Amino acid sequence: MVRVLICGDLVWAHGECDELFKGLAEVIRMDSPNRADFFANLQPGGKYDGIVGIYRHNVSADHIGIFDKELVSKLPSSVKWIAHNGAGYDQIDVAACKERGIFVSNTPGAVDDATATTALYLVISALRLFSHAERDLRAGKWKASHKPGAAHDLTGRTLAILGLGGIGMRLAELAHAFPMRVVYHNRRKVASAPEWCEYFPAERLDEMLAQADVLSVHVPLKKETEGLVDEKMIRKLKKGAVIVNTARGKVIDEDAMIRALEDGHLGGVGLDVYPNEPEVNPRLLEFPNATLLPHMGTETCDSQKKMEIRALTNLRDFLTKGKGEDLVPEYKQQPAGPGLSKL
Amino acid sequence: MVRVLICGDLVWAHGECDELFKGLAEVIRMDSPNRADFFANLQPGGKYDGIVGIYRHNVSADHIGIFDKELVSKLPSSVKWIAHNGAGYDQIDVAACKERGIFVSNTPGAVDDATATTALYLVISALRLFSHAERDLRAGKWKASHKPGAAHDLTGRTLAILGLGGIGMRLAELAHAFPMRVVYHNRRKVASAPEWCEYFPAERLDEMLAQADVLSVHVPLKKETEGLVDEKMIRKLKKGAVIVNTARGKVIDEDAMIRALEDGHLGGVGLDVYPNEPEVNPRLLEFPNATLLPHMGTETCDSQKKMEIRALTNLRDFLTKGKGEDLVPEYKQQPAGPGLSKL
Repeated sequence: MVRVLICGDLVWAHGECDELFKGLAEVIRMDSPNRADFFANLQPGGKYDGIVGIYRHNVSADHIGIFDKELVSKLPSSVKWIAHNGAGYDQIDVAACKERGIFVSNTPGAVDDATATTALYLVISALRLFSHAERDLRAGKWKASHKPGAAHDLTGRTLAILGLGGIGMRLAELAHAFPMRVVYHNRRKVASAPEWCEYFPAERLDEMLAQADVLSVHVPLKKETEGLVDEKMIRKLKKGAVIVNTARGKVIDEDAMIRALEDGHLGGVGLDVYPNEPEVNPRLLEFPNATLLPHMGTETCDSQKKMEIRALTNLRDFLTKGKGEDLVPEYKQQPAGPGLSKL
Repeated sequence: MVRVLICGDLVWAHGECDELFKGLAEVIRMDSPNRADFFANLQPGGKYDGIVGIYRHNVSADHIGIFDKELVSKLPSSVKWIAHNGAGYDQIDVAACKERGIFVSNTPGAVDDATATTALYLVISALRLFSHAERDLRAGKWKASHKPGAAHDLTGRTLAILGLGGIGMRLAELAHAFPMRVVYHNRRKVASAPEWCEYFPAERLDEMLAQADVLSVHVPLKKETEGLVDEKMIRKLKKGAVIVNTARGKVIDEDAMIRALEDGHLGGVGLDVYPNEPEVNPRLLEFPNATLLPHMGTETCDSQKKMEIRALTNLRDFLTKGKGEDLVPEYKQQPAGPGLSKL
């Protein structure tokens, strides 16, 4: 029987895992305490010898590091599929995988709901100054430092979504309930987006930013998106606008964002992600109107279970059908559905 | 020209106030530093002599106290209308007003959006443990004390609304976007409620509570609703349910709620209101899963302005038509629209 490797412990879907691979593959758990041990056991005769597929979760990086070029080069040639658990797969060197003929899948839809809810929470907190208000209360100051009029309703204000993929679209739906006005920028128009989502192509990006009360970032981290939200983009936002980021910290130029908070150009930020997690730039802690979550985007039992099952199902489908459904866009001829990957 | 009294400073609607009463009434600002001075100036020949209507905001209580029986008895007989700024008018003794032939209006619709948004924020924070997570981050602990699986998605879970008035209905709409399942209890079924809002009459209240993941409180504070959410009601909730309160602190038996947090029956609370504001029971601060806002429900420039205009308009309509639109339910023959006032 072929062998698959679970790299990063399952928490919720043990039973489902047994069920999915019953009679199909032997499931091995990666238990290497460090990278050297992992590499050693990938060798012929090692514990992981002959594996054809890998389930991967970011927690495995705590022991064996990320799936960079070096690690990918050490995988035995039997490995054909890496089923990553998570929407963002920036811890995997996809180019290196492609070169070695290894496919990579992620779990896009499974995180949409939980992450978009996180973004909505940050939008509310930033516009209504709630996180700051709670800190005041807990410091025994009730609402002493609250300035009447500094807080704003969501209703009727403009939410600009940078990257209308699954998460961005889900946020759009939740914000539309108020309703907020929803505008978005993508490399290409999203054909499936409802009419009330107004599209702004690259040549009208500045126009979109000038109208936004909130800019919410939903692009994956890649070479092309690192620092995408830069000084120039931030300064095109109207004064007092807020930025929400539930994607990846490095998509925003953090220094430029901090400068804009310091000089009052930005009215606030709501952040779930940071450039060097779990480190948080201590300067962020000083701004009253910063809501700062420790990467809680997908932290619900519901989405965690959905993600585990989705990643395992990709691996199983590779075994039975030759291909998991969530092959990442880099492998596709056409840009990914909404063109998000090529923003 | 008749005289009206502004009791509690206007912040947003000065221009609108001038416009509304131009040629209709002389607008006098209450500037008494204390209750005795206020009473003195209500006397014949005093600054407030001959006023026919009063605009009232809770901030006036800081100087002259609430509109209790004593204060109402001191109003000159010329006073026929009190236009309260706010949805909740528990600082006015309506029975005493009625007895003296003084009508009272509030500003119901103006606060729906801002208050329901606050409730939604508290629902998200309680189910996702976000406030706790931010406290951890700010203490330099990233998500050290976060238990995977303790957090829950809103989607698919059951939101029970106690009191489906304007605010409750607005929250229902926002929660329906996920969708959450929405159930509610009122004394009577709300005819205008959409089908997806499931009604539970008094005889099925326990059944509703047993199904609720979240109980959100939206009843006005009156004698009949003080302590309405009591030990018995709290214990009927399923284990791990959370309570959200954006109405009035005294509607919940705080001690019973704290006991249920202590023994783990409640999974969390999200509170914007407290029995003795601005005091907050220090025991509440000790629970990790308590999100505690300092009565921010209507704190937005948008709703503050809407409320001021609405209250002033009620007063103006009394002058021009004999009756403001938002006369409180106690004056109506039939229970208020949704029957909320008689819950």
